[in-house]
Amino acid sequence: MFVLGIDPGLSTTGYGLVEGSHPPRAHRAGVIRTNTDLSTPERLAELHRGLTDVMADCRPDAVALETVFTNRNLQTAISVGRASGVALLVAAQAGVSVFEYVPTAIKSAVTGDGSANKNQVQQMVTRLLRLKDAPKPADVADALAIALCHLRAAPLEAQR
Amino acid sequence: MFVLGIDPGLSTTGYGLVEGSHPPRAHRAGVIRTNTDLSTPERLAELHRGLTDVMADCRPDAVALETVFTNRNLQTAISVGRASGVALLVAAQAGVSVFEYVPTAIKSAVTGDGSANKNQVQQMVTRLLRLKDAPKPADVADALAIALCHLRAAPLEAQR
Repeated sequence: MFVLGIDPGLSTTGYGLVEGSHPPRAHRAGVIRTNTDLSTPERLAELHRGLTDVMADCRPDAVALETVFTNRNLQTAISVGRASGVALLVAAQAGVSVFEYVPTAIKSAVTGDGSANKNQVQQMVTRLLRLKDAPKPADVADALAIALCHLRAAPLEAQR
Repeated sequence: MFVLGIDPGLSTTGYGLVEGSHPPRAHRAGVIRTNTDLSTPERLAELHRGLTDVMADCRPDAVALETVFTNRNLQTAISVGRASGVALLVAAQAGVSVFEYVPTAIKSAVTGDGSANKNQVQQMVTRLLRLKDAPKPADVADALAIALCHLRAAPLEAQR
């Protein structure tokens, strides 16, 4: 199974495609950045084009996202909501199922500790995927962590 | 000038096309409803299809939206953020400029009172557009009010 983890943001969206092999393997990872000189609608259109291309290249079996934080402020929630809305849309347009996980579930799945910090997540993602270097920027590590979280959760989902 | 007002929501999105004639004239108005049995990504895809069709039918010179409320709760903000993100995306994909107005500006432009209630807005929209009946549901009246607000503001914008 191939899972595409996405960490959506209007400025920077991280993505990472992970295969559920033993050990799990990262196939593609990167970020989509939008032009800060453009208007929000134009940036959302850039993000939509970028993610549509990534989806066509990766052809994942599932898309995994982090449930939007509920402890941030409203302006951030609206901005992240818009970017995550575009990510959900792209997945639906490609006919791929989307699974969402809360931040503590993702941290716990990757590090064993639901309150792990960014650095610990980055280190464990590097180790689990046997990467030479830590994935950068943090958005890429987060996207890979989300994909790893779904790979751990998916067998349990299938048994339900 | 033809302005398409949009009042986006995941369940119900109102829209209304208004021509900036004297008096202003409503050409099309309605709602896009999404199937509550579907997942959020699938509902966003329905909304995207619906709004893309409306945009192609209406071919507006501008799209006007209400700035997302900042006094609602976070879950609502994320949901409205996702729906409004899709509306902004559709406008950008059609190459149409988007203008956003705060709720008080919309109420003030239509009724002369920034603290007007839904009922007053509905009545004034009906009168200004010389409609036989009040537009229903409220999402349609709101969308028409947003379009009327932009028609009042646009000449001022052009003078800047």
